[in-house]
Amino acid sequence: MKLVRYLSGGEAYYGAVVGDGVRRITGDPFGKYTVAPTNQHISQVKLLPPVIPSKIVGIALNYRSHLAGRPEPTRVEAFLKGPNALGGPEDFIVLPKDAGRVDAEGELVAVIGRPCRNITKREDVWDYLMGFTCGNDVSAREWQLGKDQDMQWWRAKSSDTFAPIGPWIVTEFDPSNAHIMTRINGQVVQNGTTQDFIFTVPEIIMTLSRYMTLEPGDLVFTGTPGTTPALNPGDEIEVEIPNIGVLRNTVKAAE
Amino acid sequence: MKLVRYLSGGEAYYGAVVGDGVRRITGDPFGKYTVAPTNQHISQVKLLPPVIPSKIVGIALNYRSHLAGRPEPTRVEAFLKGPNALGGPEDFIVLPKDAGRVDAEGELVAVIGRPCRNITKREDVWDYLMGFTCGNDVSAREWQLGKDQDMQWWRAKSSDTFAPIGPWIVTEFDPSNAHIMTRINGQVVQNGTTQDFIFTVPEIIMTLSRYMTLEPGDLVFTGTPGTTPALNPGDEIEVEIPNIGVLRNTVKAAE
Repeated sequence: MKLVRYLSGGEAYYGAVVGDGVRRITGDPFGKYTVAPTNQHISQVKLLPPVIPSKIVGIALNYRSHLAGRPEPTRVEAFLKGPNALGGPEDFIVLPKDAGRVDAEGELVAVIGRPCRNITKREDVWDYLMGFTCGNDVSAREWQLGKDQDMQWWRAKSSDTFAPIGPWIVTEFDPSNAHIMTRINGQVVQNGTTQDFIFTVPEIIMTLSRYMTLEPGDLVFTGTPGTTPALNPGDEIEVEIPNIGVLRNTVKAAE
Repeated sequence: MKLVRYLSGGEAYYGAVVGDGVRRITGDPFGKYTVAPTNQHISQVKLLPPVIPSKIVGIALNYRSHLAGRPEPTRVEAFLKGPNALGGPEDFIVLPKDAGRVDAEGELVAVIGRPCRNITKREDVWDYLMGFTCGNDVSAREWQLGKDQDMQWWRAKSSDTFAPIGPWIVTEFDPSNAHIMTRINGQVVQNGTTQDFIFTVPEIIMTLSRYMTLEPGDLVFTGTPGTTPALNPGDEIEVEIPNIGVLRNTVKAAE
């Protein structure tokens, strides 16, 4: 199943994508729901971020290919992104005026499906996941890592528009061997696989849930592979994960 | 006006506290609402966190008395706390099993009343505030600052129960000269004044709103004065701000 949120006639709905059609979901997308038998063509609706998270967690340094000489973490290194940063497919990524270099980070994003706290068995994790989507963990590098970096990564990771996700949540997906590609203006700039993960999805979720109750719709950005590309106004940036889809956003400068 | 959320007959309501009574609020507590003429005695209801924030922002090193030799910040140093950390009056603060030292941080908390983005005039800030409450920015020091500290303060600041607030939001309050006292088991352990602020409330809100859209109910913990006390199971911890009230919580170890 491919789950979306979308605008139609000025109202937001959950839906299921079947072929080129969007079918409205009635009920609780995290619980019992029904899918309408009739379609709207997907080109007739505006796709929204597929969920509204209560929190967004990112994982730092989770691909060996992204370490660039830094030591491999010995534990899951998490951080928070504010829900103000959330964006959807085709939404703009806005570069703050005073940020300096801003990078894209193409990522596989796990979506929580049920409240969970302190999951201790690896095989239990799947019961608490709704599925997976593509994400871009947009990062202002000067604020994050520059000589005059902020103490914490608040605006580096949580400026408005810095967490686009989508285009939908795929409920049947194997994150153990996923391919992640990032393109800028059609050119491949990141190309990785989750086989390069330092911590797997179950390890990440177990660690987070040991300290923080995770809620339906919460997002876990699982880290980015390789070297990350800088964004410039006018760039079209795509994060593609086969068997999920392509998240496409356009970059603009703040007004 | 003193605004609360409370449980009565198993349902959560917004209310106004008048003397020893709680009067139910109907409508939008951030917009147009009416206050019922009749009371329930405050002892008959369970007070909840007075708002449900979409995000919680903390400010690091914002009192000269808390610097302890560290250089004075030259800009607002913010960080995020997860909404999972939220707690209310009389709720437990739970010490994670493996945290080591956990400190209390008594703080003045600003509550956003209207959506805002990029406030550029100091005098405009007041239009976007609902009011102020007391908060405890509970902090696991080993994870935050220890030799083997985490890269970011995620579990140090956002473990469940690490952000109690309350008992209510006072809508008429002058944050420029507020007194903040923290007591453990009746003994004063922090005693500060916002005259010792490095950045004032308007400066903080203007800075945050430059990067992040702030939403109604969002919380801004404005920093903690002086030296912070360690918490132990069984401790009763109180944060008192005159003209607001007393936030009281009890500490327990994780089971």
